[in-house]
Amino acid sequence: MTTPRTGGAQGYLRIAAEEAFTTPELVAAFRDELAAPDVDPGFRSLIGFYLDHPAERPRFIARALNDLGENRIADMDARGIDRQILALTAPATNVMRDVERATMVAQTANDRLADAISRYPTRFSGMAACAPQAPKLAAREIERAVTRLGLNAVVINSHILGEYLDNPKFQEVLEAAEALDAPIYIHPNTPPANMIGPMLEAGLDGAIFGFGVETGMHALRLITSGVFDRYPKLQVIIGHMGEALPFWLYRLDYMHQAGVAAGRYEFMKPLKKGKVSNYLRENFHITNSGVAWEEAVKFTQRVIGEDRVLYAMDYPYQCPVEEVATLDAMDMSLETKRKFFQTNAERLFKIS
Amino acid sequence: MTTPRTGGAQGYLRIAAEEAFTTPELVAAFRDELAAPDVDPGFRSLIGFYLDHPAERPRFIARALNDLGENRIADMDARGIDRQILALTAPATNVMRDVERATMVAQTANDRLADAISRYPTRFSGMAACAPQAPKLAAREIERAVTRLGLNAVVINSHILGEYLDNPKFQEVLEAAEALDAPIYIHPNTPPANMIGPMLEAGLDGAIFGFGVETGMHALRLITSGVFDRYPKLQVIIGHMGEALPFWLYRLDYMHQAGVAAGRYEFMKPLKKGKVSNYLRENFHITNSGVAWEEAVKFTQRVIGEDRVLYAMDYPYQCPVEEVATLDAMDMSLETKRKFFQTNAERLFKIS
Repeated sequence: MTTPRTGGAQGYLRIAAEEAFTTPELVAAFRDELAAPDVDPGFRSLIGFYLDHPAERPRFIARALNDLGENRIADMDARGIDRQILALTAPATNVMRDVERATMVAQTANDRLADAISRYPTRFSGMAACAPQAPKLAAREIERAVTRLGLNAVVINSHILGEYLDNPKFQEVLEAAEALDAPIYIHPNTPPANMIGPMLEAGLDGAIFGFGVETGMHALRLITSGVFDRYPKLQVIIGHMGEALPFWLYRLDYMHQAGVAAGRYEFMKPLKKGKVSNYLRENFHITNSGVAWEEAVKFTQRVIGEDRVLYAMDYPYQCPVEEVATLDAMDMSLETKRKFFQTNAERLFKIS
Repeated sequence: MTTPRTGGAQGYLRIAAEEAFTTPELVAAFRDELAAPDVDPGFRSLIGFYLDHPAERPRFIARALNDLGENRIADMDARGIDRQILALTAPATNVMRDVERATMVAQTANDRLADAISRYPTRFSGMAACAPQAPKLAAREIERAVTRLGLNAVVINSHILGEYLDNPKFQEVLEAAEALDAPIYIHPNTPPANMIGPMLEAGLDGAIFGFGVETGMHALRLITSGVFDRYPKLQVIIGHMGEALPFWLYRLDYMHQAGVAAGRYEFMKPLKKGKVSNYLRENFHITNSGVAWEEAVKFTQRVIGEDRVLYAMDYPYQCPVEEVATLDAMDMSLETKRKFFQTNAERLFKIS
């Protein structure tokens, strides 16, 4: 196994599409939220672990998240990553009950991110943070970040204080993203208090399982509630090999049609494009963050489309160089591999 | 497309491994539970729909569940199903707070099932119902059903009043199943009250999504809690293409190892066999109930093993004859197809 290098000698650049950073303002807000009464149980489990657990992995992650300079570039070089698409780390502002502070944290993060990109324009791109719990301000911040700071997408860390983007209260956020042609990356969050019970009890609330439940459900309810009939040009990105929705495709279509035909739920009306799968193939892009596995990458390319499946590393949460080498070695044409590692991301994030 | 017929002319018999029936005693208990105070919200959503909704699909299902005679045989003939492995329909006894009644409902169902099998011994096999909320009685009933009634497995409809089989209180149930070499089919249930919140709100609590969350999590926590280190010969069957766990395999292994290495959770200790995937490949069998999709069947055969992937129809919940024809037409060797449709089930359920 040769060590992957940057520069594209293998026939493609490697653009990693779900890479995380933090800011001092976010860390301070996390600490205050952790100390507040009635803290969200998933947040306490997740951020309590990453901020303060003494084990090697959380300590490496805490250090690496804070760096947008030479150490990060060196880590990218050592792993053959040409460019990171950066996003403020989960759950970012989504958990903050102080709406004014959440908005400030997002704005500061976008300013810091734009600054880092200006220092390393060939190595970094980024997604806009926002605080959707203040929808009008969030829409304004998305517009500022895209048009004035040059950011290329929006990141929203799944549920917002227990609510989801299909809720009409968030319509300005979706409108802004669609109008600006900025894809929304729905990054995982831990499940909210009314969904986390048995997962938390069993230690399955985080990346091992709960993240996928939460984020897959969020993506699915955007579809079944008709969000993409209202915002047909909106593009949503989900990671972790589509949070297993590609594998569920047959059952989603079958049971959605059965539910609609029976009129079982007020929430589930007929959709303009009919099947759930039509929306996954036309309004979604999927990254393989956390899943360096040829079987799953190729499955998703076959059932969703190879123009919609993108590479992501998930730095610094999961970043062994061996995973890059494994993906380089996939039995896949160079043309398809170039789409996966490079050109799908260039098109989606408008990187030239 | 030719209509599938029974008899094995295509080179294999079709044994369908997750087929449902009900009894008058269960229907009466469901009605009483629905009328009781503080009814489980998932139960009300699911069984309220199937018992009383006027749409065509729930009315067909209610009729078909009640028949263990000529009408069922005719439906099997029309779909080319040689044998059904029958299980008392979900959530069966799991939701009943009256433990004595739950035990009685299970016993009566097993007697009725054994009677139906004696009338159609070449067409029906069956799984034992039990009421795990009374673990000692449940273990005794499993023993009676397997040794005296000739049933071939045990069905448990996921959570038992919000608790899971890794809870030590259920140890007699697992011991009995292992000692009798009777596999446990973990059939879906709706998520319990402390996990169903946003899924119920969005109409995603049932077969379209919530079933998979609930049952996949149940299977996963059996693994991560060390159940199979304590009961190494225990075999568990899960349907719906493994509730997506095969597709999650890489991430489950990675994040489980990361969690164990960091000592993040009291609940998650190192496992004897190391990786989660080792248990999925050695202690699980997977049926394709509800997923008549070549891509997913073959993916699961590749990553779990073709000796562990079995056919199921999910009659009467999902039973279009076209699905049988689609699976007959899979691009797969006759030898592998015979394992899938026939011989894996014969071995697992000891059908001769």
